[in-house]
Amino acid sequence: MRTEQITLNGDRHVTLTAYLLGTGGEFFGIDRRPAMLVIPGGGYHFCSDREADPVALPYLAAGYHAFILRYSLNEQAAWPNPLDDYDAAMDLILKHADDWRVDADRIAVVGFSAGGHLAACAATMARHRPSAAILGYPVIDGACVNDYLPGAPDAAEAVDDRTCPCFVFATRTDNLVPVENSLHMVNALCAHDIAFESHIYGYGGHGLTTGITAINYPGYSARYANWVKDSIAWLEDVLGGLSVRGETPPAFGPRLNGNRDETLNIDCTIACLKKSPEAVRAIAELVPQKDVFKDAPSAAGHVIRLSDSLRYAGVPDETLNALNERLQTIPNDRRTDK
Amino acid sequence: MRTEQITLNGDRHVTLTAYLLGTGGEFFGIDRRPAMLVIPGGGYHFCSDREADPVALPYLAAGYHAFILRYSLNEQAAWPNPLDDYDAAMDLILKHADDWRVDADRIAVVGFSAGGHLAACAATMARHRPSAAILGYPVIDGACVNDYLPGAPDAAEAVDDRTCPCFVFATRTDNLVPVENSLHMVNALCAHDIAFESHIYGYGGHGLTTGITAINYPGYSARYANWVKDSIAWLEDVLGGLSVRGETPPAFGPRLNGNRDETLNIDCTIACLKKSPEAVRAIAELVPQKDVFKDAPSAAGHVIRLSDSLRYAGVPDETLNALNERLQTIPNDRRTDK
Amino acid sequence: MRTEQITLNGDRHVTLTAYLLGTGGEFFGIDRRPAMLVIPGGGYHFCSDREADPVALPYLAAGYHAFILRYSLNEQAAWPNPLDDYDAAMDLILKHADDWRVDADRIAVVGFSAGGHLAACAATMARHRPSAAILGYPVIDGACVNDYLPGAPDAAEAVDDRTCPCFVFATRTDNLVPVENSLHMVNALCAHDIAFESHIYGYGGHGLTTGITAINYPGYSARYANWVKDSIAWLEDVLGGLSVRGETPPAFGPRLNGNRDETLNIDCTIACLKKSPEAVRAIAELVPQKDVFKDAPSAAGHVIRLSDSLRYAGVPDETLNALNERLQTIPNDRRTDK
Amino acid sequence: MRTEQITLNGDRHVTLTAYLLGTGGEFFGIDRRPAMLVIPGGGYHFCSDREADPVALPYLAAGYHAFILRYSLNEQAAWPNPLDDYDAAMDLILKHADDWRVDADRIAVVGFSAGGHLAACAATMARHRPSAAILGYPVIDGACVNDYLPGAPDAAEAVDDRTCPCFVFATRTDNLVPVENSLHMVNALCAHDIAFESHIYGYGGHGLTTGITAINYPGYSARYANWVKDSIAWLEDVLGGLSVRGETPPAFGPRLNGNRDETLNIDCTIACLKKSPEAVRAIAELVPQKDVFKDAPSAAGHVIRLSDSLRYAGVPDETLNALNERLQTIPNDRRTDK
Repeated sequence: MRTEQITLNGDRHVTLTAYLLGTGGEFFGIDRRPAMLVIPGGGYHFCSDREADPVALPYLAAGYHAFILRYSLNEQAAWPNPLDDYDAAMDLILKHADDWRVDADRIAVVGFSAGGHLAACAATMARHRPSAAILGYPVIDGACVNDYLPGAPDAAEAVDDRTCPCFVFATRTDNLVPVENSLHMVNALCAHDIAFESHIYGYGGHGLTTGITAINYPGYSARYANWVKDSIAWLEDVLGGLSVRGETPPAFGPRLNGNRDETLNIDCTIACLKKSPEAVRAIAELVPQKDVFKDAPSAAGHVIRLSDSLRYAGVPDETLNALNERLQTIPNDRRTDK
Repeated sequence: MRTEQITLNGDRHVTLTAYLLGTGGEFFGIDRRPAMLVIPGGGYHFCSDREADPVALPYLAAGYHAFILRYSLNEQAAWPNPLDDYDAAMDLILKHADDWRVDADRIAVVGFSAGGHLAACAATMARHRPSAAILGYPVIDGACVNDYLPGAPDAAEAVDDRTCPCFVFATRTDNLVPVENSLHMVNALCAHDIAFESHIYGYGGHGLTTGITAINYPGYSARYANWVKDSIAWLEDVLGGLSVRGETPPAFGPRLNGNRDETLNIDCTIACLKKSPEAVRAIAELVPQKDVFKDAPSAAGHVIRLSDSLRYAGVPDETLNALNERLQTIPNDRRTDK
Repeated sequence: MRTEQITLNGDRHVTLTAYLLGTGGEFFGIDRRPAMLVIPGGGYHFCSDREADPVALPYLAAGYHAFILRYSLNEQAAWPNPLDDYDAAMDLILKHADDWRVDADRIAVVGFSAGGHLAACAATMARHRPSAAILGYPVIDGACVNDYLPGAPDAAEAVDDRTCPCFVFATRTDNLVPVENSLHMVNALCAHDIAFESHIYGYGGHGLTTGITAINYPGYSARYANWVKDSIAWLEDVLGGLSVRGETPPAFGPRLNGNRDETLNIDCTIACLKKSPEAVRAIAELVPQKDVFKDAPSAAGHVIRLSDSLRYAGVPDETLNALNERLQTIPNDRRTDK
Repeated sequence: MRTEQITLNGDRHVTLTAYLLGTGGEFFGIDRRPAMLVIPGGGYHFCSDREADPVALPYLAAGYHAFILRYSLNEQAAWPNPLDDYDAAMDLILKHADDWRVDADRIAVVGFSAGGHLAACAATMARHRPSAAILGYPVIDGACVNDYLPGAPDAAEAVDDRTCPCFVFATRTDNLVPVENSLHMVNALCAHDIAFESHIYGYGGHGLTTGITAINYPGYSARYANWVKDSIAWLEDVLGGLSVRGETPPAFGPRLNGNRDETLNIDCTIACLKKSPEAVRAIAELVPQKDVFKDAPSAAGHVIRLSDSLRYAGVPDETLNALNERLQTIPNDRRTDK
């Protein structure tokens, strides 16, 4: 493992620490590696060592290159300085991607508390959006953000269609950053159909980092520490994995249904398709045997995909394919209600 | 293990299946056992076998007696019939508590989908509230409820101060009952400071029950199955455990802070205490060395407890105790803002 | 789940308890289920309740039918009465296999302490050998067996070529049945190339059953409890799994190499093939480019399979197949040295 | 994390890589850390990168400093050169213990294959014995050792009373280093009452290192990867843990019983005490109510400790203490039969 310590901005004391694993040779098939950029917390007043190396290490153990960003603090942190620091780090990583054998399409971030705010901003508004973001007991809400860095934005309000998949975790009894921050982020992700996973553990205070007992006072739910391995498994769901035969594709796609695609298609919900008379006609014509609009109850109809409904009714694959091709000729004016 | 099959309501085909474990004898120290009441889903149209025995079994393996409630369906399900069925089951269990060696103070429910709706209603409005509720991909929202059982209530709106601790889990890509149902429940629990834990897994369709591959089509995040053991660990956090020396107390209390207690106290948040001039005076008098109100930023101040702030500042325990006694003489007019 | 309580032998108080899960219907694809026969311990003086239901339950939760055998004890236990009880239980299960939807090819046993002795005897000398055996802190050695049931056999000495795959676990600090018993069984399995898995946990006394804290005094390694889920995963390796599309095949074969097959083949070790001049000629003829006998060091040569050596050297599959066909014409006079 | 690359022996290309974690500061209570010395395998012909960084990382994540030893190979490896390299590494680590904040009493080794041979030799014959050794699919037996490094010793034969606790793991179907090597080591540890834990997984070839799929071809039991976290938990059992309040003591002692202590005591087995007429008299005198020698069956009597037997019989603690003091006046002529 090679270590590099790079100054990104001397005036603002911004540094990037790089931990770079081997590739090729005995690591057959591993020509490049995904990367994890760690953003420690500390209320924009310090960068916590407890949320730096201890966090980088399990991702390194899982085969990720790891980077630690120490960003602008206190008087140097006037927004958007920290976000610029993040983008500067990404600029550098991308510039060295060939050198460092980084897979530029699989760079994730993990941030905690105020660093979770910065990671959430990276996910929603950076020049270089990460491929996935892990947000640990993040500061999200405007009012709470304002306590730590006046002028910095509410990250939940910034969620848009281009926001990357997010893994959000916290403890319900966080006694410094209220768990509502995490819930607001999750609610916003859900409203925009951004892929997410969320774990709110029953008990535990603020700043538990990886949950190993070596660096925490007792008094939290033991399963809290699961977020580490769960986040690694989730990254594999979202970004794909590493294997001796090279990288493997993600197991799952990002969207719940086709409602936000450019054109209509059979993975749109019935509720969405119902609004297009042309779609309704196409369905009636190609699948006369099943009145999908009649059977779907109103609310549940909002989420049932046409494909699920027709497969359940035994409609054969060729019919589904033909219908899909027909529906794809109809522009989707981006109805986003699910 | 003894099995009993009891008809609770012949006209409505309501039954309770009891699986009763041994107590005493070689099970030294286990004089009574906690119980889990399983409420399968099925859209109030059927009671799914996949959410009956397979769910009861891991709780039995963990030392719980288990009961399965098959409640009123279809035309017999007019609300509140299913809730009455639940209460009838509880009446019976409580009546037989001595017989069956059930610890009446530790009866939890677990429900799925429509059964999750019924379990959530039990948690929020039953005659016999359970001690804890586990809600699996539940139907919660009024509109969604209306698709399955018109006239039945929105369970999130019913959350009150007496609602029992809840463990809520779902998959984000549930393609039948939208994950928003679970999020709404979690948001409501959070707003009322009811103890909760929540796991929203990234991928998976509806009705995955315990997540064992034997009863599910492939295509969901492997960690989904963790909810089973996590819920068992959470129950021990909330209700306490079983040991050869008898039952052990819960590891954690239900409330995040003292803001909802009868009187003020040192576990109230600083933001809460600030509203009471009498409390402000008491603090200034007993802890002159620390101006807690000055240091607390506005939003974060909403959740920082006085006790945390003073302990962090090194105030000795005797002072804390004296201050607590003084604060407890001040009635809390139930300000519930955190 | 149906429960049946059957008397196998009234005079000797031998009973079989059957816990039978549902099949078909909502359990799509599950037409039959594998079964686990639980044999509790108790020094042939009693059948421990702690090793009965608590053990059956996790296998039920994993989708196995479960049976509990309470066998002949004390003066009724004169060998081979307990083994006859086991065979009577198997007779009954096999007779009811259609009825109870048991997959007759996947009936495993799990036994503890003296019950582990009986399970090991079932694996090595019963009329109806099980498909797999799980042996928990078993009594194995003649001297130790003699303390509990004089006249009963040493199970390790009985290991033969037909012995089923075995999963053996114990704690090193067992203060009643020495861990040497487990090691002797493992050594015997290894010597006969019988598939096995073995976990000896660092700390813990005798009789810890499933390792849940509810039924054990504290003072043992927490990972002890892993044997339960590990044994379930191992059974799937060995016997295959259950899925909604029916049973799946085992992931792995029983033998380490081809040395005990009827004829020679490319999965024999190089050391084994070297003893057959005919095999040596065939290899030289078909793979002239690689002198496998020259490169193989003496001891390691004992376990390297010809197939591994040739694949590593880049020999193409067609050549391997041709060589295999040729080797299979040579009878293997059952040299069993590896 | 600081990295240092140190040449231990330039002529023989022996190096030590040090990965040093932070102590003090935000790592409250962690003044020193335990260390893990990683010894990669490679048949004494190379040092595998797959068994270097990927192994160091999970121990770093658990809070250990990590070191990687690249030792003498090929013509430079004539025994005892590799063992001398190990001792040179330990010399250096101990010399820098204050500097590097290493707890000199908690330095463990982990070695694989040929590196497992070297680690086992360290455990049994080095100048600086480690505090614990983890042996992964080790080469142990003389004949097998001879294939890789003629003249190097059989490590199992070297097990003595001072051998450190060992954690031994392998796969049964290792097709390069036969699993018998691991079993022989375990048998030897058991015979000398050295603390051990052992996991033999059912399926998998040689050289699986940490078991992450990124660096292994498919085709092994998924639970293989558990050895990593299990070894970390076992180290905590054996060496004690790390906490924010400093290091915690080991949970368990090294010996099964008192049979190898300097004097007799109540933790000696009944079989051991029976050989001392003086002990027999002392027991009869102080505990007249219980004839421990009569009740103990011959073989099981070999392992039952007097303390267990008397506690089970309800003998009060004061009596036990008095008896212990009396027995401790009797020298133990090191009868080592259990």
